[in-house]
Order: sequence, then C-alpha cells, then structure tokens
Amino acid sequence: MAANPIGIISMQFVRPFTDQHLALLAQIRELGFEFIELLVPEPEDRLDLRELRKCLEVNQLDVLLAARVNLQRSICSEDETNQKTGHAYLKYCLKVANELGAKIIGGPIYGEPLVFAGRAPYPWTAEEMNRRAERMIEGLSVAAEAARIEGKIFAVEPLNRFETDLLNTTNQAIELVDLVNNDGLGLLLDTFHMNMEDASLVESIKKAGSRIVHFQANENHRGYLGSGSLPLKDVIRALREIQYDGPISLEPFRRNDERLALPIAHWRQPDKDQLPKLQDSLQLIRSTLNSSGQE
Amino acid sequence: MAANPIGIISMQFVRPFTDQHLALLAQIRELGFEFIELLVPEPEDRLDLRELRKCLEVNQLDVLLAARVNLQRSICSEDETNQKTGHAYLKYCLKVANELGAKIIGGPIYGEPLVFAGRAPYPWTAEEMNRRAERMIEGLSVAAEAARIEGKIFAVEPLNRFETDLLNTTNQAIELVDLVNNDGLGLLLDTFHMNMEDASLVESIKKAGSRIVHFQANENHRGYLGSGSLPLKDVIRALREIQYDGPISLEPFRRNDERLALPIAHWRQPDKDQLPKLQDSLQLIRSTLNSSGQE
Repeated sequence: MAANPIGIISMQFVRPFTDQHLALLAQIRELGFEFIELLVPEPEDRLDLRELRKCLEVNQLDVLLAARVNLQRSICSEDETNQKTGHAYLKYCLKVANELGAKIIGGPIYGEPLVFAGRAPYPWTAEEMNRRAERMIEGLSVAAEAARIEGKIFAVEPLNRFETDLLNTTNQAIELVDLVNNDGLGLLLDTFHMNMEDASLVESIKKAGSRIVHFQANENHRGYLGSGSLPLKDVIRALREIQYDGPISLEPFRRNDERLALPIAHWRQPDKDQLPKLQDSLQLIRSTLNSSGQE
Repeated sequence: MAANPIGIISMQFVRPFTDQHLALLAQIRELGFEFIELLVPEPEDRLDLRELRKCLEVNQLDVLLAARVNLQRSICSEDETNQKTGHAYLKYCLKVANELGAKIIGGPIYGEPLVFAGRAPYPWTAEEMNRRAERMIEGLSVAAEAARIEGKIFAVEPLNRFETDLLNTTNQAIELVDLVNNDGLGLLLDTFHMNMEDASLVESIKKAGSRIVHFQANENHRGYLGSGSLPLKDVIRALREIQYDGPISLEPFRRNDERLALPIAHWRQPDKDQLPKLQDSLQLIRSTLNSSGQE
C-alpha cells in the first residue's frame, strides 16, 4: 500500500456484507478509496472469501478486518466457555485474514463491548478488575503470538466508556500494548472514542507513536468528515509528526437524521445521498494529508 | 442569584446525599461555589428537607435539582404503569423543589437513560418512534404546565446516544422545547453530551439561545475543567453572546484513575486530592467568564 491509504468501513453501505454485495467494491474503488474495512464475516453470512478476494484484486482494493466480539466471545470473560470462544474467534479472524490476504485485524478484540451487547456497566471489585486486566494481557499475548507467526497484526482498539469497561483511553492502550510487547499486537485509535476519553487527541497520537498500526478518522458525532468539530488538521499533523504511514479508515455512519426519539446508537440504512458526501470526506482527508506534508 | 452562579453536583462528593452529609455544604461554600446541584433524593435516602433548606440558607447556597428517572419512571414508556410512575415522579420533583426553594429541576426528564438502566439500544420501528416522540411532547407539556403553575421550570437535558435513545442533540431539544412552548419547560445543555452529538458547541449554544435555563460545563472526558479538550473560552463567549446569565454547574466526576479494566462509566469515590482541583476548576470558569466580558 502507498503511504496512508484511505479506506471505508463495509457497514457504511450494508450489514451484513454478503455475496450479493460484491458489486459495492467497484463503487468503493470508484469513489477513490484504497481499502475496505470489512467486518469479519460470520459463517452464516454467505460470503465466499475466494470470490471476495478475486473481486478485491480486480478492483485493486486492499482489505482490513474489523473483529466482532461480544460477551460470549471474550478472552477477558470470567466465564471459561466465553473465554475459550473468544480465543477460538480470534483464531478464526486470523484464518479469514489469511484467506483474504488481509494483514491487520482491528477492533475491541479483548471482547466486551457493552452497549450493543446489552449489559450496563458492572461494579467490578478491585480484585475482579485486576483479574480482568490479567486475562486481557495474557489473552492478547497468546493472540499476538499467533498473529505474529502468520505475519498478521491484531490492532487493539480502546472504546469509549459506554461501549466497554475494559479499555477506554489511549494511555491504557499504550500500557497494554507495551505489556504484551509482541509485533503481533499494535494499536488502533479512533478519534470518535478518543474525543470522549482522552485529554488531547494530538498528545495521545504523539504518545502512541509507532504503536499505531491502524487509524480511524471519525467526527465527534460520527457524521461525514468535516461536518463536526474534529480538529482534523491537528490530528493529521500529529500523525505526520510520528511518521504514521499506515491505513486510515472512515466510518461516518451517523446518518443524516435528527427525528425526535431516534436511536442514534443503532445502525441504520445509509443516507440516499451518501456517495458524494463520502467522496467529499475522502477528498478532505486526502487534501489535508497532502497539504500538511508540504513545506 | 447574581449573573452566572457556579455550582457543583452533589455526587461529586457523595451518593446518596443524606442527613449525614449536611456538613459538606459549608465545604462547598468555602470552595466558592454558589449553588449545589442536588440529585432529587429518594424517599429512602434519609434526607430531612427542612434541615437541608436551613443548612443551605446558613451557608448562602442556592440549590438546583437533578431528576433521577429510569425505565420504570418514564413519561415516554410504552408501558402505562411506567408512564404513570414517570408523571408521579415529576410531580414529586416539584414537591421537593417547593420544599427546598429550588426553581429549576433538570435532567433527562423524558425518562429513559439507557446505559445505567441496563438496556441496549432498541430497534424501534418508525411508528414506535413517532409514538415515543408524541408521548415525550404530551408528557412534557403536562409536566411543564404543572411546573409553571408552581413558578418552577423543568430543564430538559439531551444525553448522548449511549445514555438515551429519546433526545440526543441540541437541535432535537430545541424542536421539543418549541413544540411544548410553555414557560415551565426550558433547556439544560451539557457540553459533555454536546461534544459527542452536536456539530458545534458554539453554534448549538447560539441556536438554543434564550431556551437555555441551566448549563453544565463539563470536559470532553468529564475530568476537572481545563484538563481536557473542551474549548471553554469559545463556549463562554457563546453564552455571553446569547446573554445567558443563568446557572452553570460542574460535574467533573471522572476520577483520576486509568487502571486497565476500570469501568469509567460507573460512579466512584472522589479523588483524595479533589478539593484544590475543584477550586481550580471554579476559578478557571469564573475568570474565563470575567475576562470574556471585558472590553
């Protein structure tokens, strides 16, 4: 990939992504994106990975994977079955990555996103917290080593406090990645979550430095890039400063809708007019990257 | 109250606030705060309202109330019992306000905060959404009229997408307040939530204008004011521009703790060193208010 390829998440268009949606790849390429960030398909999703890979190659699109974990698929779980299912799932992600030729698998791979799994923040005791942290470190050490052997990288992503109680801040994620200390584990930062949990986007990026292997440039409210209050130029300059040349993906799936009583956190169908807006988002980040690199 | 009294939320110190905690009021006054934002006490909280009122007067502290609603206490509920309990609760809030001499009762008074109530975002149909919006408008119309008659104001607060699916953005809240159109209903804006849902803090404040009856100045990550990325000066200037002279409260209850596997969304005991930090927060907002008003 060239420096800083820009990609788009598959669920910007459709969820789940199946054999019926392969034509989307040509559209995504035509918009100008260089990779797709694909939610790791579930076995029941009817997605032929060989067909998909061919289609990616035809369209000269790269692919990154986004892991889909949950409480029953969690290497940090206090329940042994859930823990094992979590480990088996991460292995499955590596298998899918191999079949598609993807190098990076990102997401909250520790396994416990809360809101969408329907669990409220739980008042863990200090001891329980320690054990969860230990399981996270040990579990990710195992997963990282498996990835390293395959030439892959898991990119662990902190989520905001409402989506997980395991890893929220960039500081925590840096500590975690350093404790695991394996080339098979890097950091995925998402400005949507950072905007809620970090003191400073710029300082967090600088601190994280070369640990970052994937980056998600999202507006504070997850609207189209440029439509919110994200200080994009500052973010891009910080990425330049740490010489980040890895992938950057967009996930502007807020949708253009402010009806009363609308469940914003819930996934909805794309806006009808999203294609030109996605193209604007892409051009905004590409031109910001280009101009910030000029003398 | 003088222009822009600055207050602090009671759960910065303790939860629940009971007869045992009346001495905190002297401490809060000594720090320089002008009002306390008190969570509406539950009947079982053992808080003697007459004693509290005396104690507030002795310490020259004003009081605002923060309503505590939930799924079973929701004027928007599809369940009639929950709906009635929601209405009864808002009446109870007015009673408490009368007994304490409070004028404003703020919060997500529509009744359905999600995360702490343990419900994941629910995929309502368009029709269900409409009915929920109607119940919100009708329910708040009844509540607003009851407040107006008593010389009180309910201040409805949009929460971020993870805490409710009824009212998230300032735009939605403006629409709601205008539809209800009653002096007994105003707007409570909290920069913590706005930072996640609005395109621009400044534009939202200007749009909301005189509908705002209470304001919460919170950092993006809910740390001590000044420790995060909130553009405080811009926010204060916008409030000046709309000639907002109402109360502003602080709720920096993030706590100073970044252990791995820490449930940040869960309430925790105060930092041991919080008093000087609260004083710094107070001085920062007061001095920003003062200097932004100078020629």
